[in-house]
Amino acid sequence: MMLDAFARCRLHEDFEPVTEMGANPYYRPVEERLVTGEVLVDGRVLVSAGSNDYLGLSADPRLKDAACRAVRRLGTGTSGSRLVNGSLALHETLESRLAAFLGQQAAMVTPSGFLANMALGALAGPRDTVLADQLIHASLIDAVRVSRARLRRYRHNDMEQLDRLLDGCDPAAAALVLTEGMFSTTGTLCDLPGTAALARRYGVRLVLDGAHDIGLLGAAGRGAAEHFGLESAVDLHTLAFSKCFGTTGGAVAGPADVIVYLRHHARSMVYSAALSPASTAAALAALDIIETEPERRRRALAAADRLRADLTGLGYDTGGSPTTIIPVHVGDIVPCCLLWRELFAEGVFATAMVPPSVPEGRALIRVSATALHTDAQLDRIATAFAVAGRRLGLIS
Amino acid sequence: MMLDAFARCRLHEDFEPVTEMGANPYYRPVEERLVTGEVLVDGRVLVSAGSNDYLGLSADPRLKDAACRAVRRLGTGTSGSRLVNGSLALHETLESRLAAFLGQQAAMVTPSGFLANMALGALAGPRDTVLADQLIHASLIDAVRVSRARLRRYRHNDMEQLDRLLDGCDPAAAALVLTEGMFSTTGTLCDLPGTAALARRYGVRLVLDGAHDIGLLGAAGRGAAEHFGLESAVDLHTLAFSKCFGTTGGAVAGPADVIVYLRHHARSMVYSAALSPASTAAALAALDIIETEPERRRRALAAADRLRADLTGLGYDTGGSPTTIIPVHVGDIVPCCLLWRELFAEGVFATAMVPPSVPEGRALIRVSATALHTDAQLDRIATAFAVAGRRLGLIS
Repeated sequence: MMLDAFARCRLHEDFEPVTEMGANPYYRPVEERLVTGEVLVDGRVLVSAGSNDYLGLSADPRLKDAACRAVRRLGTGTSGSRLVNGSLALHETLESRLAAFLGQQAAMVTPSGFLANMALGALAGPRDTVLADQLIHASLIDAVRVSRARLRRYRHNDMEQLDRLLDGCDPAAAALVLTEGMFSTTGTLCDLPGTAALARRYGVRLVLDGAHDIGLLGAAGRGAAEHFGLESAVDLHTLAFSKCFGTTGGAVAGPADVIVYLRHHARSMVYSAALSPASTAAALAALDIIETEPERRRRALAAADRLRADLTGLGYDTGGSPTTIIPVHVGDIVPCCLLWRELFAEGVFATAMVPPSVPEGRALIRVSATALHTDAQLDRIATAFAVAGRRLGLIS
Repeated sequence: MMLDAFARCRLHEDFEPVTEMGANPYYRPVEERLVTGEVLVDGRVLVSAGSNDYLGLSADPRLKDAACRAVRRLGTGTSGSRLVNGSLALHETLESRLAAFLGQQAAMVTPSGFLANMALGALAGPRDTVLADQLIHASLIDAVRVSRARLRRYRHNDMEQLDRLLDGCDPAAAALVLTEGMFSTTGTLCDLPGTAALARRYGVRLVLDGAHDIGLLGAAGRGAAEHFGLESAVDLHTLAFSKCFGTTGGAVAGPADVIVYLRHHARSMVYSAALSPASTAAALAALDIIETEPERRRRALAAADRLRADLTGLGYDTGGSPTTIIPVHVGDIVPCCLLWRELFAEGVFATAMVPPSVPEGRALIRVSATALHTDAQLDRIATAFAVAGRRLGLIS
């Protein structure tokens, strides 16, 4: 008799201590999402303080109208992969618009952001090496595992280590550098100048995941690459519609030959059902807004600056990120979950990040600011952190 | 200087010969999807003959109404992972309903069917073995690669080979058997009696992907497991909403402890944005219909029987599948694509499957019948196959 593959599931009691304390932050169902940046949870109206809806578009009437029109006209699903029978003219319109927006030759719309990153697995093989920042998203790690390429990770933004790793790559194989414009947990930016210089020096391709920054950063919203003035140094971009675009789905944008190749070789594209008409239309409506309402970006970043200053002023370690994501570092899991619970009690719905999403001993509350947060709401968040932190003795 | 990771993209010319013949079947955009089982492509109304919309629900007014209501109330996206801030009460309702429908303790709704299968990667580790039918879906293979377990594939439904592979498994590690209820390319059913008996004899868990059969097979629509009267022999089910459920998304259903474990350890769940309100609501509306309108299943299967008899009568090798999927075996890529082109010219939008989606030399046209096909449409499909096949000399 072999071991039971499900035995691991019975050992899963990680969250029982915090659950008993009423401090389990996970899978809390939202009953209603309110246009004002508030959510209804457990029958209470809370300020939403952990969303990736930086531009506040997921409840925008223009996205809703576009989604409903697409549902009425094209149905609730396409019932097939893009490759065979699931492609819509609407997908192609979105692809052309994204390519033009990002100044790329072509784009490919995928059923999710996770699957956009998984598509990168088609660009490396077992002999190749992928060099990646230690903080890259799980979907990028899974893409490398699926490709069977060698994964070499360097400490977050550690350019000396990246240099040494590139220097050690097999000259008879290919290498790729994989990083993110804006990191989801820390809110930090990629050292794109350093990374691009090394990629160029070693003659390797640079792939940038813009899930969190495309739409938000850069004067025109083209992301971290635009922010650094280094768009031409990035060989391929991935993006997600579940952040600034206010819906679901993702895309890869870059040279035409790479996109054509991925359309036929990326398993996450070829073998999964197309993005729904509703999400495709919503993403297109979001792109219109991203292109024409730069004030949303400015408002979201200004709201984050204000909130970061308040939280830092209270004595929290916020790590100094320059984006809409503000990590409030706590350290251990239990106090982090207790802080989450007290914020919840004070009317703030934030996000607790614990290992393995963050390194051991680096548990944090992830706060994010959006274009919809009013000054009064930002004050409510800061006040909740003051009250909760003092109650728990985390700040003085 | 290392090799260029993008060099492989320039070598991609696979489809140029067929493209020059006007016979490239891929990424043909649908302009409109019509409720009658027809689609508008290149300005022409074609009979849709390759869709996975077996029950005809993707354009059902009840799904459309549910999706639009959810968009109005909850927005076009949830802007977060289920784990942290993306869970909706609507997701939980769908999960309870799915668990009850399938007679399972619990269910977990995932952002896509591909990601539901990827979640299985959390159930095996590097020392474990996954035994899988040769024809399983790419998402299941990727799940195994991500888990780093050993993958051992047996020939389609070859129970002797599965027996030998199970016999050779490491007794100090775990093993899982992974198969599908209904195979997407061939339309064949899993030998579930044989597979379940072997899984039981060796004491290993059996995981069944019901993407194509849940909703379609079994008197109550509970899939291949119900069809064979072997629901209690299956330890875990995955499903996809992009087939019978007429929308996008997926789910895993099974024992409560396994689902709780996956909710915290499946990377495709934890690290991807939640299924959109529109698709969640549409899947719930589809489940109502699946539970109350068994005549749709009967109609789809009867339509397939009629069409299969017609195509076999014309002299095509349809492989004898008992489901809504009818593979029309052609063999080589070029004649397969030419047949696709001629069917298209005759007003039929079918699907060409070529390597690597099928083994070398096994290219085929995948025809699928749905509950919406009228007898007149089924006749149009058969007539197109008659005309096109004779024109190309594939049938006499």
